[in-house]
Order: sequence, then C-alpha cells, then structure tokens
Amino acid sequence: MNVHERLAKLGLKLPPPPGAAGRYRPAVVAGGLLFISGQLPIENGKLKYTGRVGAELSEDDGRAAAQLAALNALAQIDAALGGFDRLVTLLRVEGHISSAPGYIYQPRVLDGASDLFSEALGDKGAHARAAFAPSSLPHGAAIELVVTAAVTDR
Amino acid sequence: MNVHERLAKLGLKLPPPPGAAGRYRPAVVAGGLLFISGQLPIENGKLKYTGRVGAELSEDDGRAAAQLAALNALAQIDAALGGFDRLVTLLRVEGHISSAPGYIYQPRVLDGASDLFSEALGDKGAHARAAFAPSSLPHGAAIELVVTAAVTDR
Amino acid sequence: MNVHERLAKLGLKLPPPPGAAGRYRPAVVAGGLLFISGQLPIENGKLKYTGRVGAELSEDDGRAAAQLAALNALAQIDAALGGFDRLVTLLRVEGHISSAPGYIYQPRVLDGASDLFSEALGDKGAHARAAFAPSSLPHGAAIELVVTAAVTDR
Repeated sequence: MNVHERLAKLGLKLPPPPGAAGRYRPAVVAGGLLFISGQLPIENGKLKYTGRVGAELSEDDGRAAAQLAALNALAQIDAALGGFDRLVTLLRVEGHISSAPGYIYQPRVLDGASDLFSEALGDKGAHARAAFAPSSLPHGAAIELVVTAAVTDR
Repeated sequence: MNVHERLAKLGLKLPPPPGAAGRYRPAVVAGGLLFISGQLPIENGKLKYTGRVGAELSEDDGRAAAQLAALNALAQIDAALGGFDRLVTLLRVEGHISSAPGYIYQPRVLDGASDLFSEALGDKGAHARAAFAPSSLPHGAAIELVVTAAVTDR
Repeated sequence: MNVHERLAKLGLKLPPPPGAAGRYRPAVVAGGLLFISGQLPIENGKLKYTGRVGAELSEDDGRAAAQLAALNALAQIDAALGGFDRLVTLLRVEGHISSAPGYIYQPRVLDGASDLFSEALGDKGAHARAAFAPSSLPHGAAIELVVTAAVTDR
C-alpha cells in the first residue's frame, strides 16, 4: 500500500499543500534533509481549528487539529519531494499546542499527529517528538507542527 | 553583488556577531550543517527592542526587531564560515515573537527577517519558516530567531 | 576519562533513558544526525521538577532541573548510538524554561544543561543554544530540552 492508499483507508486524502504567505518557502531540501515550514490545521485554505485546548477546544478537537496539521505536513513532503519515494524517515516532530492555563496533557493532543504519521508512512513515519504548551499561536491556531525529515538525493 | 554590498544598498552593515554568554557556542558547524544560537535584536552589545508586539511595541517595531535579529544571524554565518561562500542555503528560520494577548499577526513581524535574508543572500536566502507567539522571551527581548543552514565542507 | 567516569566525578550516573509515551521514538538517527525527543527533568520515571522558575521554583531549582534533563539527553544519546564513540558533536540545545511573569534570566537556568554537556562530553559537548520562557510546559515540567547532534555512520 502506498501513502495515498493508507490515507484512503483512514478516510483521508492528501490536500493541496498550504502555500507560503511571505518571502519564505513551504519547504527547503538540502544536504539530505527536508525542513518544512510550521504547519497549521488549515483546510481548504482556511484555519479549521482556532483557540486553546482546555478552554475553547476539547482534547478531541485538539487531536483532530493535530491530525489535520500532520496531513498538511504530508502534503508538503509530497510536494517538495515529488512523492514519498525519496523520504528516508521523519526525524523530529515538534508540536506547539495552544493551551488554556492548567491544561498539561499536550502529548495526548500531539498523538493525533504521531498516529497519522505512523499509519500513513509506516516505518518511514518513525520520529522523535517534542510537545509545547504556548498560550497562543499565530492567527489563533490551535496547533502548529514543525517537521524535519531525512531524504535521499535525487 | 556580494552580501556586504547588498546590505549597504539597504543602508545596513554586518555587525560584530554577538558572543555567547555561557558555555555554549554562537554557532556549530558539522556534517554539512550550521546550527546558530538564538539571535536577539541586539545592537552594540545591548538589546535594542524589548517588550511585546501589540502592547509596548508596534508591528513596525517588531519588524525592525526581526530585521536586527536577522542581521545578527548573518553576522554569525559570516563568522562561523569565514564569509558566505560556503553557505549553500538557509534551511529554516524559527521566529519567536514576544506578543501581547490577542495579537496574532506574528508572520507580519517575521517578514522583517525573511525579507532581509532574501535581499542579502539572494537564492541562498530561501528558507522554510515557523512563527511563534510567546508572551515573553529571555531578557524581555522582542524577538528571538533560531536559524539552521546547509553549508559545504571546507 | 570516558563519559561515565566524568559523570562519576560529578557524583552523577547515566540513568535509563526515559521511554516514549506514544507512537514516537525517544531518538531517531539518520543521515549523520541524531534528533532527540524533548527531555524533561525525569528521575526514576517521575517528573522531579514541576512549576515555574521565579514562582514555585528558584533559579537554583531551575538549574538542577536543567542538569537532570541534560542527563536524560545523555542517556538517550548513549542508548541511540550504543555509547558515545559515534557522537561527533552536539549541534544545538534548545531549552524551554517554565517561567513566572517577569522572570527573564532563562539563560542562567539553561547553564545547568550547558555545563553538564561540556563537563561530560568535553569537546563533543560544544553546542549552539536557544533559551525560551514559556509560561507552562507539558505535565507542568519545569524545563524541556530539545537536542540535536552530529554522529558518524556505523
């Protein structure tokens, strides 16, 4: 099964990769590495999840937001590499989860991203991880994912 | 035009790179990569911009702070590599912008850094990016930039 | 002196590396790099330091928490590489220090980690660094360290 088939089994489809909103790139590939810009829970060009987990958003909302941001990260990988064949492995996923005061279970939220990467990419989805609990994020986003991966040269 | 000439056209000049204030290095080069320490909006050894965008600082102040931190990052690249010839490309710029509650336009602020990198480095200034909105930063700095780049071996 | 002997001189011992609490890995090695998951001040499987520096915790508590998280990072390096021979150098240490409003001396806290890396690893402990001042962290941890290193292939 390829990535598209694995996503289809989950009822998901690779979206168009969100574009850059300034003089930067959605992703840069060099020296066997892929650095992706911060991915937000955007769907059809609009932020789908805003607010803080533990206040405006439930933990389940947060997990869904994490899955959506991860889906956008997969779209960036696909666009940057022309598919997933050149992907060697994810390296690290840093998840910044907008959090209400006192909410401390950010890893549960970030599991929404880790699970999708594992299910969609199989062994290549292995990753180190770090979760953070900011009180807000740009545009009021619920989550921002920063992903780094190892790739083969063309 | 080289980097110094491009900066001169913008009325800017490469400053001395800020030193480390502890047992760490301003930058480390290994394996074809350059990892730079967090850069603050320091000028002549002093923090020039402190406070939060959306409260003590305007968005324009924030952009100027981002440009200044980016100028310091360029100084670190120059010092670490002995010039810019070994620079292949920037990889990712992570911008942490000290933000008042409710201020959500951090990407506009970070454009102050992205624009400078593009103008000073040309194609080598391409970078992925992530913006964050902490309520405060070390020493009360307005912005902190974390930059990673690809380089050639000597 | 090897790393274990250097730690012993400080009265320290490499602990078992904290495991992953989800579908991610404590560390991933690829392309000559080691990416480690966020390390917390965990001892014997339990968070030893929670709360904010400048409020529930003193600066000295923070430094001790930073040292403990760094010790866990060393344990991850040891486990991922089967010892320290393959470690070329640390690259960057990002330290997120849970901070009370108005507390701005995060670099002093992070010195607790930088000092340990230098003392335990010698020249290989050189690293770029970035300090951050979030108001909270997952599980209420006092500090989270994100470490990246260069390694040789087997």
